[in-house]
Amino acid sequence: MNLIVDYISIIGSFALAISGALTAMDKKFDPFGVLIIAFVSAVGGGTIRDMLITQRDVFWLTSPSYVYIIIVGAVLAIIFRKKLNYMAKPLLIFDAIGLGLFTITGVQIGIEYELSAINCIILGTITGSFGGVLRDILVNEIPVIFKKEIYATVCILGGILYIALNKTNLPNIYLQVIPIVFIVTARIVVIYKNISLPSLYRDNEK
Amino acid sequence: MNLIVDYISIIGSFALAISGALTAMDKKFDPFGVLIIAFVSAVGGGTIRDMLITQRDVFWLTSPSYVYIIIVGAVLAIIFRKKLNYMAKPLLIFDAIGLGLFTITGVQIGIEYELSAINCIILGTITGSFGGVLRDILVNEIPVIFKKEIYATVCILGGILYIALNKTNLPNIYLQVIPIVFIVTARIVVIYKNISLPSLYRDNEK
Amino acid sequence: MNLIVDYISIIGSFALAISGALTAMDKKFDPFGVLIIAFVSAVGGGTIRDMLITQRDVFWLTSPSYVYIIIVGAVLAIIFRKKLNYMAKPLLIFDAIGLGLFTITGVQIGIEYELSAINCIILGTITGSFGGVLRDILVNEIPVIFKKEIYATVCILGGILYIALNKTNLPNIYLQVIPIVFIVTARIVVIYKNISLPSLYRDNEK
Repeated sequence: MNLIVDYISIIGSFALAISGALTAMDKKFDPFGVLIIAFVSAVGGGTIRDMLITQRDVFWLTSPSYVYIIIVGAVLAIIFRKKLNYMAKPLLIFDAIGLGLFTITGVQIGIEYELSAINCIILGTITGSFGGVLRDILVNEIPVIFKKEIYATVCILGGILYIALNKTNLPNIYLQVIPIVFIVTARIVVIYKNISLPSLYRDNEK
Repeated sequence: MNLIVDYISIIGSFALAISGALTAMDKKFDPFGVLIIAFVSAVGGGTIRDMLITQRDVFWLTSPSYVYIIIVGAVLAIIFRKKLNYMAKPLLIFDAIGLGLFTITGVQIGIEYELSAINCIILGTITGSFGGVLRDILVNEIPVIFKKEIYATVCILGGILYIALNKTNLPNIYLQVIPIVFIVTARIVVIYKNISLPSLYRDNEK
Repeated sequence: MNLIVDYISIIGSFALAISGALTAMDKKFDPFGVLIIAFVSAVGGGTIRDMLITQRDVFWLTSPSYVYIIIVGAVLAIIFRKKLNYMAKPLLIFDAIGLGLFTITGVQIGIEYELSAINCIILGTITGSFGGVLRDILVNEIPVIFKKEIYATVCILGGILYIALNKTNLPNIYLQVIPIVFIVTARIVVIYKNISLPSLYRDNEK
């Protein structure tokens, strides 16, 4: 199981590194600034998760392969930055894949540490979406996940789905694949259909 | 002692979750964005404290009751958001109570880990006020505690008072109640009288 | 070796506390806000490093002397704030010294925990520059290290130099002094000559 978790985390890191590097270039950061934002976008969520779990080492300190894959992603994003302009939507798919993979990894790690179901879902949400939160804080914007699109919502629902499936007798492989596919699909539908939850105003509802 | 610490932390979390949810709604976050800001406001300071103390588990991972109370607080804040508009000042009192309870909890935990007096005061200040700092960072504002009102100052003074009382022979119950009442009262007076420390300009004093 | 690391960290903390306090005063923070920004600027990078390394205590919790030196630095900066106006460039030198000392300390600690070379360089970069990143986040600005001047770049190059020297037979003292002098000199040259890396635009290169 851990092998699968490691493997999907690496792919997710690569996807999120590219999307982080593109954000940083849009903000006109210098090359090493781009590298740092790529790094934070890719490993930020998992790093917060690992710092929250006292017994757990931070994953990229013990598995430097994450660092290399992020550097490759950032350098590729820098080299092909003009081409990537013409494929903004395809990139959102990478982002969605990273979100699905990381969220389920985070829930799974919570289960391994025998945390309560609600805390597993919180860890999944943090793992999936807080790399993007840190990225947005660093480029001084309100984190996109809180407002613009159904983002944290998808993580939370995907986490609940995974926890629920774990109570069934489904074979292991479906346990993870179904909620990952749910999150990735839900995000892509949300993006293409431009769906939002209503925001909660306090003043305009009198 | 730990029981008391747990008990007052729960009440403090509830108060801070409501005030966090209101801030997020003023920023027009979606419902799950509101929930996340409520969560970060309520447990952010204590989480940083627990991550700083190597041996200590993060409190809400081992006691999920915090998470439930925060969800209840956030949902209540969403349901009654229009009513809460007419009670802005009463809510600041909740916030003040959360500040007092959390600050003294943080100092107390520092004492339990036999840290130096100044580090206990720092941990108290972080526990009391850094949930609000994280909330303000996430909604992309300069943290209010640094500028607008005497906030961190009250934490620091309350922490010093608690450390001082600990050197006396006062019965245990007064040890915590006196500095908590001090912090809550001081904050309420500051809010209602609109008191600020002078800010330190560098240019306009020639 | 650890003694040297402690000693240079204290000097670095003092330098960064002064530069942090000045930033906070420019933002018109109140005195305790100034103190907190000085604290975060000075110990923020090392604190993140120590939280990342599971086994490691946060340095200023076990060595409160850091806290005292930061308070002294912040109070001196407050008292002499008008005089310091006339010495902005000399202060950047303090900042450069803090950067050099902290970066190499961070790399050294990574080596002590037998981390891979690339992770040692990352820890050095975090130790040297993330106090400033946290400072900029708290005052709600895009961290200066990503854009304006060659900053993270100098940390990364200095870290690579230190790792490379460690493979040689140089006496211990040179191992640390050479990369520290490199970082400090490089930063000062960058500041005085106003050198930047090109930022990577995505749109203007068609």
